[in-house]
Amino acid sequence: MEVRIPKRTLAEGLSILERIIPSRSSNPILTYLPIELSEQGLILRGTNGEVDLEVKLPAEIQGSGQVLVPAQTFAQIVRSAPGELIELVFGTGERPGERLELHSGAFNTQLSTTSPDGYPELAFKAPGSEKIAASRLAQAITRVRYAASTEEYRAIFRGVQLEMSPTSLRAVASDGFRLARYDLPMQLQTRKLVIPARSADEIVRVFKDAQGEVAFAVGEGTLTLVGEAVRMSVKLMEGEFPDYARVIPQSFVLEATLAAEALREGLKRVAVLSDRNNHRVNLLFNNGKLDIDAEGDYGRGREELAIDSSGEPQLMVAYNAQYLIDALAPIEGAVRIKLSGPTSPSVLQAVEDAGYLAVVVPLRV
Amino acid sequence: MEVRIPKRTLAEGLSILERIIPSRSSNPILTYLPIELSEQGLILRGTNGEVDLEVKLPAEIQGSGQVLVPAQTFAQIVRSAPGELIELVFGTGERPGERLELHSGAFNTQLSTTSPDGYPELAFKAPGSEKIAASRLAQAITRVRYAASTEEYRAIFRGVQLEMSPTSLRAVASDGFRLARYDLPMQLQTRKLVIPARSADEIVRVFKDAQGEVAFAVGEGTLTLVGEAVRMSVKLMEGEFPDYARVIPQSFVLEATLAAEALREGLKRVAVLSDRNNHRVNLLFNNGKLDIDAEGDYGRGREELAIDSSGEPQLMVAYNAQYLIDALAPIEGAVRIKLSGPTSPSVLQAVEDAGYLAVVVPLRV
Repeated sequence: MEVRIPKRTLAEGLSILERIIPSRSSNPILTYLPIELSEQGLILRGTNGEVDLEVKLPAEIQGSGQVLVPAQTFAQIVRSAPGELIELVFGTGERPGERLELHSGAFNTQLSTTSPDGYPELAFKAPGSEKIAASRLAQAITRVRYAASTEEYRAIFRGVQLEMSPTSLRAVASDGFRLARYDLPMQLQTRKLVIPARSADEIVRVFKDAQGEVAFAVGEGTLTLVGEAVRMSVKLMEGEFPDYARVIPQSFVLEATLAAEALREGLKRVAVLSDRNNHRVNLLFNNGKLDIDAEGDYGRGREELAIDSSGEPQLMVAYNAQYLIDALAPIEGAVRIKLSGPTSPSVLQAVEDAGYLAVVVPLRV
Repeated sequence: MEVRIPKRTLAEGLSILERIIPSRSSNPILTYLPIELSEQGLILRGTNGEVDLEVKLPAEIQGSGQVLVPAQTFAQIVRSAPGELIELVFGTGERPGERLELHSGAFNTQLSTTSPDGYPELAFKAPGSEKIAASRLAQAITRVRYAASTEEYRAIFRGVQLEMSPTSLRAVASDGFRLARYDLPMQLQTRKLVIPARSADEIVRVFKDAQGEVAFAVGEGTLTLVGEAVRMSVKLMEGEFPDYARVIPQSFVLEATLAAEALREGLKRVAVLSDRNNHRVNLLFNNGKLDIDAEGDYGRGREELAIDSSGEPQLMVAYNAQYLIDALAPIEGAVRIKLSGPTSPSVLQAVEDAGYLAVVVPLRV
């Protein structure tokens, strides 16, 4: 069993796995990295119990087999290797797989290995024929992720819901005070699934820069994503979101359009002085102008922005500044703000991206 | 009282002070920033009780006076200001200094201020005629700082000792297992002073990129440094280092020269596998070659380096790898390692910088 692989290829593969593989675990075998040599290449795996991950790397391989090496130590050694090429020689001890030699330039290591027998089986399912562009899937999750709850209460809101249908892939997150929704036009089988927010972050991390498409399979409480070089399986949450559509207002008394970034930056400035408990910021829509202001223990901040508006000439609404700043973050270019009244939910939409919609509930006066 | 100042100038001044001013304190007035308007410019101050700092900024000023503003909030507002210019207007309330208005572009703030009456007097002494290039002082401290102790035991070693004499400024740090010494040729009055390591870090941070010279004054347990735009005063530790010169060996059985970076990188790689308790790495000097190796729970690492050597043909010495890596860090180019024996202290010197000397005590076999 021998492998020759560019240091860079191996280091990149390990960097994908490193965040998943725990550095400590009540089940210590999970801190090890399973390395498999096969005709398909060098296969690395890892799991944190919630997310299973497998990375396939092109390499020059002789022989086949599987061993476990201490993941953190192995990754440190690979990153610090002095040569551009890394050579791995397995099983030079009496039993095969009992020792791993790593050679790179003038540097030589003998690493103890462990038998793969006790390592848990990873939950990859065979994918069906449906596919999604990897980067688009990551994008849809990214745009709504901020709205997921961090509270124990109503645990289902600690996930991101994916709704697949013959017309779209929809991602939704909410914490009860705000909601974010993103639609990608797409033809899929109808199903709903809720991914824990932390696992959703891992999907984004692994696939956001990936080329090509991912095939997927849903079954037995898991979602498996199969890309070109990566397989990933995440445990799903049980249940689904309560009917959130009814909190999205359909009629509005005032609509305003302005540059999302100008509003976001203005809110950040003004919010420095807001009340530290509720981060309250007042928005006064007033005949083509938007005044934002906040007041707290240390003083008062104010900024005026120009807007295009229609509907009521004047309306004052108060929000948690952070909720507005979060809702604006995914919007490039202009934002359209639609108000249904001073105490009922407001809608934010990206003028240049019809897929995005955010709902923010105002603060009570 | 009015000030007009470029945002960048003010933000840079605040960034120097921000690390000193505590965000919480049992004496809440220390979390405030004293702002003084004078003919010399806009003067900002801060103290953490150990280090007093004053920054003088060029600005267009009308009037004179002094107020306190909440430091963290003020810095946040300045950094987020939308315009290139910031205008500060003081004392628009009934009593002067009771309110501060900040204007920048379309953004306006009213910040509550506090009277400077309760603020402690800062301990700046009038400097004498002796001067040191600011960046050289920072350099001398930086090169030895790593060797300072973090243990409660023998508290004096938690400082950096500066020894001034008619021939040099010498910086020394030690934790009893290693020592670092740096000499700058210079003509100064003879005195010794010990700066707490954390305060030494602040001297480095403030002066490392400063142009010009600093004048200084020593007195009443403080060192005052006066640069062009900055005054700094640090509390000194009581006492001085015990006689450390006797641990620096004067005769050697083997001397070896090699590239410091190659040795440092090799040690880092090999150390990944070293014993996690003592970080032991073995150095075998052997007829023009240096073999470094370490062994721990996860395996063994080895690397061979070419050296120029004289003295004994062969010698094995073991060190805490981290101590060697630290001692090599200040050395650019080649390092000369001088061994006095397998268990007595070793000396490391920078071939291209006669000012630097490090002593590392080997591990017992």
